[in-house]
Amino acid sequence: MRVAELPQITAEILMRLRVRAPRVHCVTNSVAQAFTANVLLAVGAVPSMTLSPDEIGAFVARADALLVNLGTFDAERRDAVAAALEVAGEARMPWVLDPVFIDRSEPRAEYARALAAQKPSAIRLNAAEFAALSGGAEAAPAALSRYALDTLAVVALTGTVDRVTDGAQQVTIENGHPLMAKVTAMGCAASALNAAFLSVESDAFRASAAALLTFGVAGGIAGERATGPGSFASAIIDVLYALDAKALDQKARVR
Amino acid sequence: MRVAELPQITAEILMRLRVRAPRVHCVTNSVAQAFTANVLLAVGAVPSMTLSPDEIGAFVARADALLVNLGTFDAERRDAVAAALEVAGEARMPWVLDPVFIDRSEPRAEYARALAAQKPSAIRLNAAEFAALSGGAEAAPAALSRYALDTLAVVALTGTVDRVTDGAQQVTIENGHPLMAKVTAMGCAASALNAAFLSVESDAFRASAAALLTFGVAGGIAGERATGPGSFASAIIDVLYALDAKALDQKARVR
Amino acid sequence: MRVAELPQITAEILMRLRVRAPRVHCVTNSVAQAFTANVLLAVGAVPSMTLSPDEIGAFVARADALLVNLGTFDAERRDAVAAALEVAGEARMPWVLDPVFIDRSEPRAEYARALAAQKPSAIRLNAAEFAALSGGAEAAPAALSRYALDTLAVVALTGTVDRVTDGAQQVTIENGHPLMAKVTAMGCAASALNAAFLSVESDAFRASAAALLTFGVAGGIAGERATGPGSFASAIIDVLYALDAKALDQKARVR
Repeated sequence: MRVAELPQITAEILMRLRVRAPRVHCVTNSVAQAFTANVLLAVGAVPSMTLSPDEIGAFVARADALLVNLGTFDAERRDAVAAALEVAGEARMPWVLDPVFIDRSEPRAEYARALAAQKPSAIRLNAAEFAALSGGAEAAPAALSRYALDTLAVVALTGTVDRVTDGAQQVTIENGHPLMAKVTAMGCAASALNAAFLSVESDAFRASAAALLTFGVAGGIAGERATGPGSFASAIIDVLYALDAKALDQKARVR
Repeated sequence: MRVAELPQITAEILMRLRVRAPRVHCVTNSVAQAFTANVLLAVGAVPSMTLSPDEIGAFVARADALLVNLGTFDAERRDAVAAALEVAGEARMPWVLDPVFIDRSEPRAEYARALAAQKPSAIRLNAAEFAALSGGAEAAPAALSRYALDTLAVVALTGTVDRVTDGAQQVTIENGHPLMAKVTAMGCAASALNAAFLSVESDAFRASAAALLTFGVAGGIAGERATGPGSFASAIIDVLYALDAKALDQKARVR
Repeated sequence: MRVAELPQITAEILMRLRVRAPRVHCVTNSVAQAFTANVLLAVGAVPSMTLSPDEIGAFVARADALLVNLGTFDAERRDAVAAALEVAGEARMPWVLDPVFIDRSEPRAEYARALAAQKPSAIRLNAAEFAALSGGAEAAPAALSRYALDTLAVVALTGTVDRVTDGAQQVTIENGHPLMAKVTAMGCAASALNAAFLSVESDAFRASAAALLTFGVAGGIAGERATGPGSFASAIIDVLYALDAKALDQKARVR
């Protein structure tokens, strides 16, 4: 993929999402559930979020992609993740790992490292989480590439600048807006978007880069409209719903 | 009830809600909780949402209506539902069943069928959920009526067109807005509204038809104001808060 | 503290929050989680919300203040609270008790009384909850003072008028807006704000009075901008994010 093509590729994947309405099952924390569901609906995906061990297998079996987010992590969620990953593995379904807040708790970090070894399609995280996951590495391009090669997962790092790599290819995205750090569940929603993009695009590097570009461009436009983080949270959903090739092309700052 | 009277009846029930501030206890999924609570507050009801087996009985005993929603279904929730229904049954309290996503999981559908046999006042659902609940029937007027007669519950079906029937009477509501399908928990909130309306109107058919008309008209007005699903979710709450007889009368499309 | 100084003190504490970005761990109900997190982020604090017994200790140990809210109360939450309070006690960390809805369930009230005996820095509650907590007392100034002296906690009562007392000092705040009663989790968020203010201000009376003044002034300004409870919920977050000394000084109605 040539980096300059990313806006065009992103617009095509967004179109596929709106046409195909893929199902994305989300194992995620209760803080993030509603916002995550609304982000997925805004781009055309259909979210489901049950965690019941009795039925999560049935939901994942009917889904097109899976998100595993560790926020508000507990025994129930660990069981749900195990059941979900078993079904996803059998179906060779793409899945995204979001190791939320693993820098705050060593048991959580250990669990995330075990999950990272189970071949996620992509791992979406921030710099502090990357350090905890990789055993202390700084989130610099070389370390990200090495980690991607080790895990065979695309690494999708978000921050002031987003970096996506599969070890061989890399893209840097300089979109987004400072208000994104002032609304809860923004990272969680980015991970869910990544899962949605993987459900309709088999190239995991393209899918992940396109998902972060979509979220970053939407965040930038929402930031221009918003008067603070409350209106921003609502505006980014509106922008995602209407995002088109023209806006992506005009706003994308990728290299 | 003559169908032409529905807007007027709806306005009267809304007035009662605002004056009496009935309590509605909601067993619902964590994705839907906050939005559902805000919809109830907007029409004057007072929501509570605990699921603890230790205290759900105390909450339901002090409530005026009960919602049982199966989304994010698990063992804890099944216990909560059993305890809640026992208290509601003793108090002859109206309750609404919302069999969310039962088309995705057979254990969930089976559980919903068992609950439908426990005499809910109303069952609020969509066409796919009706098919799963009724053993495959299409959501056509005759099948809905038959199911209402079988369960002795009002069937309140939402979709592009809403249909409400108690087996003897039927009303079709053509309000609503396409953005309602792009915001999570809209169906769940409609079910909670149905429970609120039942708390101040003993005729379950009237209450259910009025609840869906309220939500549909509010959705239509919110759709005119919104620039996407994010602003729509906020606008429908504002509209519900201010909805009056005049707007209901002007906007209602019932037959 | 002279009451007239409160707006100035409040502005200084808000400044400290924005500079220091303290961490506030919240044991709170799933209805309130997202809104609470967004209120904390809007004033510069960093929320975390895990309830897992395996890791809540690690999160609290890295936090600067703790919120214990009883809404959607269950066994899991009781375990989480016990673990959190143990760590907070060892660290002499400030914590706030929010005895949500204890007027609805005696087991919940009993549990709240046990927690109130464990030296919270502040107890944020409404009049009905105060009656249940104190064994029936009306929420009048003398009873609030007595209860504050008994528990050694600041009592922060919210309602049409807010009252804050540590037994020796008292302040009455007449800000706020009627729409605050029409949005879920407003009280829960006020309690979280109280915890955030305690994390950067060691005088618990000042911190609690400043937190309620902040929320009340923000509510008043948001009420002028909003067209109903949906837009109000978004507006109060925007206002909190931008609140400054000038607005506090102009709008504060304290005595």
